[in-house]
Formats: sequence, C-alpha cells, structure tokens
Amino acid sequence: MNSSVPYLLAILGEGVVPPSTMVCHADDLGLVRGDGVFDTTRIVTAQDGTSRIDHLDEHLSRFARSIAGVDGPTPDLDSWHHLIDDAARTWRIPGEAALKLVYTNGRQVVPGPPRGFLIISPLSETAIEEREGIDVLCLSRGVTSEAFADAPWLLGGVKTLSYAVNVAALRYARSQGSDDVIFTSTDGYLLEGPTSGLIIEAADGLWTTPTGATGILSSITVSTVFDAADEEGFKTSTRLIKSAELLRAQGAWLLSSVRGVAPILSVDSHPLAQDEDMTRRLRTWAGFDACH
Amino acid sequence: MNSSVPYLLAILGEGVVPPSTMVCHADDLGLVRGDGVFDTTRIVTAQDGTSRIDHLDEHLSRFARSIAGVDGPTPDLDSWHHLIDDAARTWRIPGEAALKLVYTNGRQVVPGPPRGFLIISPLSETAIEEREGIDVLCLSRGVTSEAFADAPWLLGGVKTLSYAVNVAALRYARSQGSDDVIFTSTDGYLLEGPTSGLIIEAADGLWTTPTGATGILSSITVSTVFDAADEEGFKTSTRLIKSAELLRAQGAWLLSSVRGVAPILSVDSHPLAQDEDMTRRLRTWAGFDACH
Repeated sequence: MNSSVPYLLAILGEGVVPPSTMVCHADDLGLVRGDGVFDTTRIVTAQDGTSRIDHLDEHLSRFARSIAGVDGPTPDLDSWHHLIDDAARTWRIPGEAALKLVYTNGRQVVPGPPRGFLIISPLSETAIEEREGIDVLCLSRGVTSEAFADAPWLLGGVKTLSYAVNVAALRYARSQGSDDVIFTSTDGYLLEGPTSGLIIEAADGLWTTPTGATGILSSITVSTVFDAADEEGFKTSTRLIKSAELLRAQGAWLLSSVRGVAPILSVDSHPLAQDEDMTRRLRTWAGFDACH
Repeated sequence: MNSSVPYLLAILGEGVVPPSTMVCHADDLGLVRGDGVFDTTRIVTAQDGTSRIDHLDEHLSRFARSIAGVDGPTPDLDSWHHLIDDAARTWRIPGEAALKLVYTNGRQVVPGPPRGFLIISPLSETAIEEREGIDVLCLSRGVTSEAFADAPWLLGGVKTLSYAVNVAALRYARSQGSDDVIFTSTDGYLLEGPTSGLIIEAADGLWTTPTGATGILSSITVSTVFDAADEEGFKTSTRLIKSAELLRAQGAWLLSSVRGVAPILSVDSHPLAQDEDMTRRLRTWAGFDACH
C-alpha cells in the first residue's frame, strides 16, 4: 500500500468529495465511543467502468437495523441510494472493491446531527489469497451462547463501529501464523468469525450458527448461499454447533460479503477435511465463481 | 448544549487548533473499527485562569498501557506532556472540565501514522447532579468473571474507543429512569460501571472488584481512594462480590475521574443504605471535597 491507493469518499448531504477530506470532529461519538454502525458489501466494476453492487437492498436493510440498534433515527434510504449511485458512477476502476457505509450518532460535546459517509476501496491482495483457503484459530469471545437474550444493551447482531476486539483477535491470530478466527462461546459453541459467518458440512447437510441469543450478526452471504442451496435441494439448517464438531466436518467455510467464500484448511493447526465440489458450489451460490 | 459550548482541541504534532477542526479521515481505524484507546481525567481551573490536572502521570501511564494493548507503538510521553501543557495554558475557563486523550491506530486503506489528540470540555450539569446520588441498574455484561484470563485479544483492562455497549447500557438505564449501570457477570458477580469503578462498604471494610480475569479497567480514582483510606487505617480489599451483597452493603459508590464519587441511592429500584460520613471521606480522599 502507498499513498496512491485509489479510494473514494462520499459524505451524506455532500456527495463525492476528495478522499483526503477529513470527515469527523474530535468529539464525534463514532470516534470517541464507537457509537455508530457500518455495513460493507462488494462492488464489481467491469472493464468499461460500469459497476454493480452485490445485495445492496439487503445491506441497506441491515444497516438500517443496526442504526436502530444504537437508537439512531430511521435513515433516509433514498438519500443513501442517491449517494451510493453517485459513488458507483464515479468509481471507474475495473475489478472488485469494498463499499463501506458508515453511520455515527453525531457529536458528544458540541451538538450536531448524525453523520453518514461511504468509502470504496479496492479488494486487498490478502483477501484474494484467502479465497484459496485459510488457517483458523478458535478464540473465546468471553460470552455464553445465551448472553444476548433479553439484553438489547449488549447490541447483539448490531454491526457497530466498536470492533476493537474483532481487530485484536485477527491481529492475535496473525501473530500466531493463522489467517482468521472463529469465536467460541464460554460454554463450548462455535459462534462466527470477526468479520464473517460460518458454514460447516456434516453428513446431514449444511449448517450455520444461530443469531439471536448468541449475538451473532446475520450474515447476508450465508443467507444468500442457503437460499440457493435450498432451491437446488440441499439440506440447510441452523443450530448451535459444538467446537469439537468442526474437526469431524466434511468441510467448513467462513463467508463474507467482500472476500466471499474462504475454505477452512485447518483449525488450531488440525487439518480439516476439504470438499472442493461444495466449495465450488458455495462460490457459485454466493456469486463469486467468476473470481476463480 | 449549543454551538457556543466552550471546547478545546489539540492535536499531537500540531498543538492547539480551532475546535471546529476535523481530526479524522474516513478510513481511520479509530473511527471505522474502534481500534484505538482513550483516557480521561479532570482539569480544574481557578478564577485566575491557572489549571491543575488530576493524577496526570497515572492517567498517562494507563493510556500508554492501553496503547500497548491494541499493539500501538510506545507513545512519546514528552510530546503528550508538551501538548497537555499547551492545552492547559490555553484553557482559561474557571471551574471543572474533562481532559480526554485519544489515540488511534492510524488509517486502514491509505497508510498513515497513528493519530493522537486531546479535548477539554466543561463538566456537564448531569455529572454535577449525579454527585448527590445515583439510581443504578444492574445489567449483564454477557461475560463470565473469568472470561479475560489468558485471552489478550478480548482487551480486558484496555480503555478502547469501542465503547458502544457502555453507551448503549447507559442509554438503556436512562430509558428505564435510572442514572447509571453496574455491569454483572453471567456467573453472578458485580463488575464495574460503564465509565466508573465500584466500591462497597461491608462490616469488615471497603471492597472493590478485581481487575485481571474479569476484564475490569483499573480505576485510578478507586486506587487513589484506597491508598488514602489505608493511610488513615481503614481496611480496604479487592475480591469478587456477589450481586446480592450489594443490597446488604452499608454503602456503595461509583467512582470516576471527572464525576468523582457518586453514592448509589438504589439498585434495580431497591433503596441502598447510605453512609454519609463515608461519602464525605471518599470525596476528600478522591480530591473532590471542595466540590460540595
């Protein structure tokens, strides 16, 4: 990376602005309290510069639910759509990029309205490599699998800006020679990745982990894949999965909107079984087959 | 609050700047990931405009430990001292204010160094009122009392910018007619407030809750009070405290650097015993007696 990294910035109420524009006051609650939310999806730009955005309505819906989760006002989705359209028309670099929407609850000391902006930045080399397979560590998230039931203040399922633990877990994994993390509950269940959802394949079909009391974020990529798998007659279900089941799985994957489908090669240095046919299917269902 | 709220901003490497200055790019990790830390103490300004800062060395030490906790570089404390001196000389408004130091891990997309700045803003009316007493809710933090043992990625004791749950818990308490929160563990122990440490008084002395495996932040105000209490021959200790013990306590307080000592009037609508002599002692020990 260097300072010529292509990068697009657009601010709600202002439009596309130079990427060097500062967006945030020193007392912005998003900055000093992580009191805001985000959502990220993929934007794919063709050689002629035209772009398509993956599952934009689903991401905007989740973004709006996240904003409600931090007691923000109902977002004006028309304004967001206009901003995203402007940004997508301006972004002309062929290839894959991440489109990140950001909302903050405004300023803490000096009064001010909520703040919204978006960033488009190219897919990292690391993400492209990780589509070939990842080594994963299981790390405790410190919570029980029922911690978020009837506890809205814990912000389960809300994609807040307070991602320090997610970032620290990824840094820890990389310091140990791994690529990614599966968080586990203190009562022994698999939860999710710091920025991804989990699918495992057992003899009786494909499984993912439940949202709700677990605090797990609803993964749009997992939902997309499961809908497509159901249509093709594959069995898909949701349940709590014990950590030990991972080692007996026929395959396991972490899924996210930008990196797509990453097959898990090993967990805590134990090699996992690979189902390359299913990996190909998952990529197709997720809309990532053209990337391979 | 209105836009004439007095407010001072100083940026590391730049000095005191107009408070309307934006400090943060759209891809700053502190903003989009809560990947940064802060620390806050009180600055007290006399009628002649000269200021003193409470326990600055202790706060700078904790700030440096927090920065290390998010894998930041060792901060140049001389530069921070110079910046704080400049800010304190510029701030001339008599009374009490909060001095907040902020560090972020720099930018995510475009490379850049870590970022540091500070804010001075006046003590809120709410904080002044809450010194007279607070009604508190006990809310689950979703974690066990041992969740942070051997799990550095959970950032126990690190004062990160990822405070969304702390803010949401306070908002929830206020929506229920309470002023503040005591977080509890899923195994039934009292932890800390979202922005404060806890002291309870039992027949055998003053108690606070342990840092370490609990993830509780080391409270500089609690330490200051306990040091002074020890010198005057009061018994002080640290242990895990069951939630039920609170209702039998002779007194209970939430302590923090800016609000000072707030006696807990009730917990979950149950009135608590008040020890007004001890409240006065705690205020004196914490350096807040002149405020009453």
